[in-house]
Amino acid sequence: MKKARIKALLVDKENNSPVVLVEIEDTTKVIPIWIGAFEAWAMAMAIENVEFPRPLTHDLLISCVENLNGKFDRIVIHSIRDNTYFASLYVIDNSGNQVIIDSRPSDAIVLSLKRDIPLYVTEEVISESGIDLTVDIPSENEEDRRFKDFVEKLDIEQLKEIMKHKERKEDEPDINDLEDEE
Amino acid sequence: MKKARIKALLVDKENNSPVVLVEIEDTTKVIPIWIGAFEAWAMAMAIENVEFPRPLTHDLLISCVENLNGKFDRIVIHSIRDNTYFASLYVIDNSGNQVIIDSRPSDAIVLSLKRDIPLYVTEEVISESGIDLTVDIPSENEEDRRFKDFVEKLDIEQLKEIMKHKERKEDEPDINDLEDEE
Repeated sequence: MKKARIKALLVDKENNSPVVLVEIEDTTKVIPIWIGAFEAWAMAMAIENVEFPRPLTHDLLISCVENLNGKFDRIVIHSIRDNTYFASLYVIDNSGNQVIIDSRPSDAIVLSLKRDIPLYVTEEVISESGIDLTVDIPSENEEDRRFKDFVEKLDIEQLKEIMKHKERKEDEPDINDLEDEE
Repeated sequence: MKKARIKALLVDKENNSPVVLVEIEDTTKVIPIWIGAFEAWAMAMAIENVEFPRPLTHDLLISCVENLNGKFDRIVIHSIRDNTYFASLYVIDNSGNQVIIDSRPSDAIVLSLKRDIPLYVTEEVISESGIDLTVDIPSENEEDRRFKDFVEKLDIEQLKEIMKHKERKEDEPDINDLEDEE
């Protein structure tokens, strides 16, 4: 299990689908998670710390948990099945007991941004879906150049290209199909 | 305070904005509440009892409350200020204490649909925003006929006309205002 944080929120221009890049701490890897439009909007508002006069749905959720004396402990993106990521929300109830709640990663990430809840990704998910964003060996190679461009610009089109290439070469799952929901 | 229920979920064609009609029990009145697109979608899915493989945001909220041994007691749409409705979510915590949580009506209504939580509207809101959908006095009058047509068709354009009139005159709706809509 590794600590993680949100690196970027991008839009896949091909299908207008938002993607969140989760960066694995102390590594050069990211996990890309395709998410729904509403969750992306909620995430963007949380990243930008936009305040609304009325509670949004995730604010209401936080308010419910905190009013019931629950305490958000951590979030773990623990597995991936059929191109869907699964997360758990760990909450400590008012008796000090740990409660584990099944969540889509997108909701969990919005909560983590709003309340600075530590975010973790399991080794299983990292090895299945992690993409290494750096190229250690300097090279004039065209693919490496594109890879570096991608790291600098966080261009989702390039990400997809890299991932297609990765898939062909390493026979890994087609990252283009990865979705957090539905 | 009156018990209420969801009568209809409509789309205001002029600005594509969803509207939920909350019907006040034992009256012929409804409260129209303009809501966000996501909340409308979540509400529609709840009305239709659509099941998703993964928890939606409101499902996660319910799961959090129930895992913390909270019990949804009731929802009250209690006031309206600057055209914004305010609701409270009443939850009983695991010590039996009542917790009152501020909510947008749209979120509260989605929860009420998903968990059959009793929904109430205060007299204040009813008198400020209630629209009477029936004409009690039988009549061959053309205006009455058009009003009844409106009730049957729940035409949002007509509803808006009625409300504009209501705002202007702070009075009961005038059927003559519906003329241009025919």
